[in-house]
Amino acid sequence: MSYAAQMLDACRRTFNVDAGLLAATIDTLNDCTQACDADTGCDLSEQTVSELVRCIRLCQDCADVCTATARVVSRQAEYDANVIEPLLEACAAVCKDCGDECQRHAQMHQHCRVCAEACRSCEHACRELLNAIK
Amino acid sequence: MSYAAQMLDACRRTFNVDAGLLAATIDTLNDCTQACDADTGCDLSEQTVSELVRCIRLCQDCADVCTATARVVSRQAEYDANVIEPLLEACAAVCKDCGDECQRHAQMHQHCRVCAEACRSCEHACRELLNAIK
Amino acid sequence: MSYAAQMLDACRRTFNVDAGLLAATIDTLNDCTQACDADTGCDLSEQTVSELVRCIRLCQDCADVCTATARVVSRQAEYDANVIEPLLEACAAVCKDCGDECQRHAQMHQHCRVCAEACRSCEHACRELLNAIK
Amino acid sequence: MSYAAQMLDACRRTFNVDAGLLAATIDTLNDCTQACDADTGCDLSEQTVSELVRCIRLCQDCADVCTATARVVSRQAEYDANVIEPLLEACAAVCKDCGDECQRHAQMHQHCRVCAEACRSCEHACRELLNAIK
Repeated sequence: MSYAAQMLDACRRTFNVDAGLLAATIDTLNDCTQACDADTGCDLSEQTVSELVRCIRLCQDCADVCTATARVVSRQAEYDANVIEPLLEACAAVCKDCGDECQRHAQMHQHCRVCAEACRSCEHACRELLNAIK
Repeated sequence: MSYAAQMLDACRRTFNVDAGLLAATIDTLNDCTQACDADTGCDLSEQTVSELVRCIRLCQDCADVCTATARVVSRQAEYDANVIEPLLEACAAVCKDCGDECQRHAQMHQHCRVCAEACRSCEHACRELLNAIK
Repeated sequence: MSYAAQMLDACRRTFNVDAGLLAATIDTLNDCTQACDADTGCDLSEQTVSELVRCIRLCQDCADVCTATARVVSRQAEYDANVIEPLLEACAAVCKDCGDECQRHAQMHQHCRVCAEACRSCEHACRELLNAIK
Repeated sequence: MSYAAQMLDACRRTFNVDAGLLAATIDTLNDCTQACDADTGCDLSEQTVSELVRCIRLCQDCADVCTATARVVSRQAEYDANVIEPLLEACAAVCKDCGDECQRHAQMHQHCRVCAEACRSCEHACRELLNAIK
């Protein structure tokens, strides 16, 4: 059981969404942040770094938006749809962009393949949570 | 001249928005993050902390979303409207929520008054940038 | 296999530390960030929030220092001992402070008990990595 | 008057350090984060990006450590010397590394020159605050 799941289990909640879905989304957001931060470092170690510039940029943007989304969702403040819905939309969109770009380098670089997977999962998780709260 | 402005001035840019507007937006996002982080600490020092719970929560969310927005805008990756527009929408919305809540405590607590101003400015800046790129 | 482990496995590395130890440290840092962010939200939901002020403050500091440490370690830049050693010292120290405070509330609040465990593990992991690189 | 200064002015404080010094340190940390984030983006726009890899890595590490330090200092929790002293040491050290590296590219790239200045100021500010609290 992840810490996200354990904490949701232990916590008074007002947010009316299935705890399993919420915990899975948080875990996936954190995984994506980790994959993107690490992929930035891996890209910078490649001799072909100049071909990976867009990948680095998108990994950084993706990590920042996933971090903010994970923290806002974890904290379980009142859910204002005007905040959480566009935030999840932005997160799904940057995960899509980043996943597409990583996929382009997946055959050449295993780290980009792994990061593409993390981005795809996260895009999917954000859309699932969006569907559940809309 | 702020560091945001100096860096934009020194940097090859592809993002087709007035540099002065962009620099002002970044500065305002960073100011809002700083005000919200500090206000969280100030609220926690008040004896009436139990009345400030919603203020603390919203300050935290606001700081996280402003940080992500500032970094994405500063980095000047390719601007995908599918990412930047909902991100700015989410940022404006959380600044509005946080500013409204801080305003409720503005007469009692000077730190909430100052934070409310920072949130209002940031909400306004996000909407101005949105108008400029849409 | 966590994303931290998969990425280390896929990445050209210059940092001369056992990859398993490094991946475990990164995972533990990320877990601690998650537990501390969530515990802040849970504490703010308790009617006894005024007794949890120090817990909230330390959870926030702990999450911020763990995040920075995880990102610096994940990115695998050149390891300058002048940076990484005091950073790990600071991280272990704030995990100890936060773990001690959470432990004080562990009988009353399950979320503080879970968070105390995450902090203890993270303090331990930081010290182990420090020992391995010193 | 910066928001850091206004908030310190408005806030009940237990941390026994001159408010002007504290506000100036926080402002300098935030400036350094901004310069480093922006410099990462500028470096990635240069055709000679492969010569700027170490600069990008250090800018990222520097931004992360400065962010954590700014937030911990802003929040004004109890100051445990075991946390704040090594954190400021780590911050000064990464600012020195990053400033040195940016300086190497200062003649070629104005953005690296500006970032080097921000790093130097921040290294200096961290050491001054360390001296004041030790």
